[in-house]
Order: sequence, then structure tokens, then C-alpha cells
Amino acid sequence: MIDRLCLIGVGLIGGSIALAARNRGLAGAIVGVDADARNLDRARARGVIDAGFVDIEEAAAGSDFVVIATPVGSVETVLRKLRQVWVEGAVYTDVGSTKSSLVADAERTFGRVPRNLVPGHPIAGGENSGVDAAVADLFQGRRVLLTPVPVTDPGALQRVRGFWEGMGARVAETTPRHHDEILAATSHLPHVLAFVLTEMLGRRDEQQEIFGYAAGGFRDFTRIASSDPRMWLDICRANRDQILPLLAQYRAALQQAEDMLATDQAEALLGLFTAAKAARQRFLDQLEP
Amino acid sequence: MIDRLCLIGVGLIGGSIALAARNRGLAGAIVGVDADARNLDRARARGVIDAGFVDIEEAAAGSDFVVIATPVGSVETVLRKLRQVWVEGAVYTDVGSTKSSLVADAERTFGRVPRNLVPGHPIAGGENSGVDAAVADLFQGRRVLLTPVPVTDPGALQRVRGFWEGMGARVAETTPRHHDEILAATSHLPHVLAFVLTEMLGRRDEQQEIFGYAAGGFRDFTRIASSDPRMWLDICRANRDQILPLLAQYRAALQQAEDMLATDQAEALLGLFTAAKAARQRFLDQLEP
Repeated sequence: MIDRLCLIGVGLIGGSIALAARNRGLAGAIVGVDADARNLDRARARGVIDAGFVDIEEAAAGSDFVVIATPVGSVETVLRKLRQVWVEGAVYTDVGSTKSSLVADAERTFGRVPRNLVPGHPIAGGENSGVDAAVADLFQGRRVLLTPVPVTDPGALQRVRGFWEGMGARVAETTPRHHDEILAATSHLPHVLAFVLTEMLGRRDEQQEIFGYAAGGFRDFTRIASSDPRMWLDICRANRDQILPLLAQYRAALQQAEDMLATDQAEALLGLFTAAKAARQRFLDQLEP
Repeated sequence: MIDRLCLIGVGLIGGSIALAARNRGLAGAIVGVDADARNLDRARARGVIDAGFVDIEEAAAGSDFVVIATPVGSVETVLRKLRQVWVEGAVYTDVGSTKSSLVADAERTFGRVPRNLVPGHPIAGGENSGVDAAVADLFQGRRVLLTPVPVTDPGALQRVRGFWEGMGARVAETTPRHHDEILAATSHLPHVLAFVLTEMLGRRDEQQEIFGYAAGGFRDFTRIASSDPRMWLDICRANRDQILPLLAQYRAALQQAEDMLATDQAEALLGLFTAAKAARQRFLDQLEP
């Protein structure tokens, strides 16, 4: 049981954590900080948080469980402020989509990663942002990856694990680097591909109406291109080292497919499409319902 | 009113046409042809069609409205068979995702496009195939593009338009070439991108479990990679001339985004993501609910 849960950032993820923690009785008081005053007001008005602060130090002081739920580009700034009120007895974690960047941010801020800072990432979300998009069951059945480092305190790790499991999530552990490799492939790369396609077709749509003839396939394929641009800029920059080689690999694979089509290598192209369909079925088979 | 509706191909599209036509009383008898005997049996058993045939000529003879709903790669073969029983008084149309290819197939088969063959394409579907995936409301509120050629008989065009409108679709007309340009951008290109990504990540998943950490964004982004590989091979080959330049353009756009990321041009990348999000919103705003 947490006495006072502090959410730094009360958007889709922070707000959903607050709702889930309240629904499941995981915390006594729930306080939040948000740079967007209107969003913070909405969070209070909806009863997502008990009290809202504009000052990170003020919100964190007296809290025994602190979750950093801001875009990854602002985590270092958040850590600098938290350092002023950092206490041994509290547990600190985050929800960022990149984990090596958190470790680096912490090392720059503290000299080393604090023992009671547990890097984490719930594999859940959506293309909408802000507290109005928050829902209490966002983490139900979802994966959460925790990426402790060698100095991480086992007790702190256990508390963060228990917190997520308390919200219905399935927790797994890996290294920050392995996390970033996996997420670059399954999330960051697809986001960049979707952004680039949608921007390119948007330019074409302005000259020649094409979106009026697009249907459900296009809607689903481009859904992630409606994600928050600044948040994704941060993620791409923070995980650049993993994303760039994948982009190059993808371009090469695309070029190969183009060559197959240009030279009418029908069997090769059919093999590629068939392998893709089979791979997606493997993915679906292990996806939680 | 159609006396005898003949569907060449009783899969997702042909089966859904049969169900919609029956529900809305658009046809007296509904007959179907399918190369897959098991699929044809299922269509009969489900009551999707009144009678099933293995022979195209037999099914089409005596039908006053014939819909070709086979993969585009087999349309020329179908037309050759239909030619044996082709009559002036009937109307012929198709549902293929590529329209210049139909015109070329008809020219090769008949010397010229028959006046009573109206090229068409319902912008509807799904990643599942076969008659079991067919539903009666597949075309409700969906766009259908008809692409008449100069010799197309206005009366035949009007009958095909009325047929689709009778199933709740919104019909528009354009040229075969313009259709192929639009669909290459909004449908064929995204399918190739999804196939290539899913195949590439499938190979990685075999070495290093990554699909277990993919979520809803990935599921939606790759949904179209579960589409029928052979059908999409046909579409890609039939619309190669439109798809290849788009693939090259996309690779160039991707390379640009990569350069922005590699050289940390944050503002440029943010501008790209922001334009993408705005473009998708324009698309959503004009999508039928």
C-alpha cells in the first residue's frame, strides 16, 4: 500500500495510472504535477488526482511512490528537480518508451543510477493524449517491462512490480538495452514509417483528392500517425541508435521487394507476402485478447 | 431488378455482394462459381447462393447481371470463358482493385472493351478471405469507384451504379488510370509496406522474441499484412506501373527522415510528424463513420 502516490505528468499514462490505482485501492492519496495547467485542472475536476501541483518538488515531497510520466525528452529536467527532495525511503519509477536514455539521464543527474529508481515501461497507450484519454483499465492484461540495472535495490524493484501487477499488468524484466532494441522494432520503427507515409500522402491529397478513397485498411495502418508529434520526437531522439539501423534495414528490404516487383519475380514476392502473413499470425497468437 | 445474378468468385467480396443483394431484394436468383469446391459448398450451405457451379460458362449463361469477383490475375481467363456466352442484354462488371488491368484484359480478349462491361471497385474489404468472411453490410456507406471507358454504354453504367447504391454504397466515377493512381497510394503502397515490415520483423522474432512485447499499435499497423498473399501478388503485378514510383518516393522520404534523425534536425522532424498528424486528421474528417 502506497501512502501518497505522486504522478509527474497526468496525461494518458499518468492519468490512467491514477485511475487504476484508485479503483484498486493501491494508494491513499494521489497527487499530480502537470506543466499544462488546463490538463491539471481537468485531472482534478475528473477526480483523477486529489491534489494538483505546478511544482515538482512540492508534489514529490512527502510522497512514497513517485512515477515519472512525462515525455522522455523532459525526464532529465524532472530528475534534477526530484533530486532536491529525493529520499531513500521512497520508490521512484518511470513509464518512458526508451530506457537507456533514462539510465543516462539518471547518471548525469546523480552521478549513478539511484538504487531506488526503477526504470519501467508499460506497453500500452493509444494515439490520443491528455488526461481526457485516460482510462482505468489501460494496463489490464498488458505487458510492463522493468529494466533494473545492477545497483537497483531488489526491494524497490519488488514494490514497482507489485504496483503494476496490482493494476492487472503482466510484468517482465530485461535490460535497458534489450528493451530499447525490442521497442525500436515493434513500436518506434512502425511509428516513423506511419508518420512518413501519412505526411507524404497528405501532400499528395492536397493536389489530388485521395483520402476520400481510402478505407479501413488505411485507417488502421495510419492510426499511430495520429500520435503526439512532440512525444515521438523525444522517443526517436532518445532511441536514435537503435532506430537508425532498423530504418536502413527496412529501406533495404523495401528496395528488395521493389526489385522483385520490377523484374516480375512473382514467386519471390509471393514468398515474402506469405512469410509476412505467417509472421503476423504468430504475433496474433501470442497477443493477449 | 435482376433476374439472375451471377457471381464469378464467392469469397469475401462476392459472398458479401450475394448476401447484400438477397437482403435488399435486388435479385431473383443468385448463382455462384468458385474454383475452390469447399468454399462453394460453404456458400451453398450458408444460403449465400442458390446454386453453385464449377463451370463459368454454365453459371453465366442465362444470367442478366454478372459480377467478376476473382483475384485480378485471373480476370483475363474469366473473360475468355465469359466470351463464349456473352450476350448484349446482360450487364457485366467486376470488383478488382486495379482497373487499367481489366481494360487491358478486355481488350486482349474481345479486341475492345465490350460496351456492357463496366469496370468497378468497391473500396471495402478486410484481411480475411473466403465466403465465411462475407457479411451483408460490407458495402454500407462505402465508396464504390466505377471507371467507365468512352465506349461504355450509359445504360449499363446506370444499372451497375444502381446495383451498388441498392447495397448502400456511395458511387463515384473516375478513369481507370486515375483510380489506379489513387489506390496505389492509399491501398497498394500501404500493403507492400506492411508486408515488408512484418516479414522483416518476423525474421527477427525468430532469433529474438520481440512479438511478445508488441501491442495495439503494432496490431493495427500490421493488420493488412494478414491479407491474402496471392491476391496481393496479383494486385501488385497488375498495378506495378503506379506502385513502383510510389515505393521509390517513399524510400526517398524515409531516407530524408532518417537524415533528420541522424543529424538531429529536431524541428524538421517535429514538422514532419506534425504534418502527418494533421493529414491523418483530414482523412478521418472525411471518413464515413
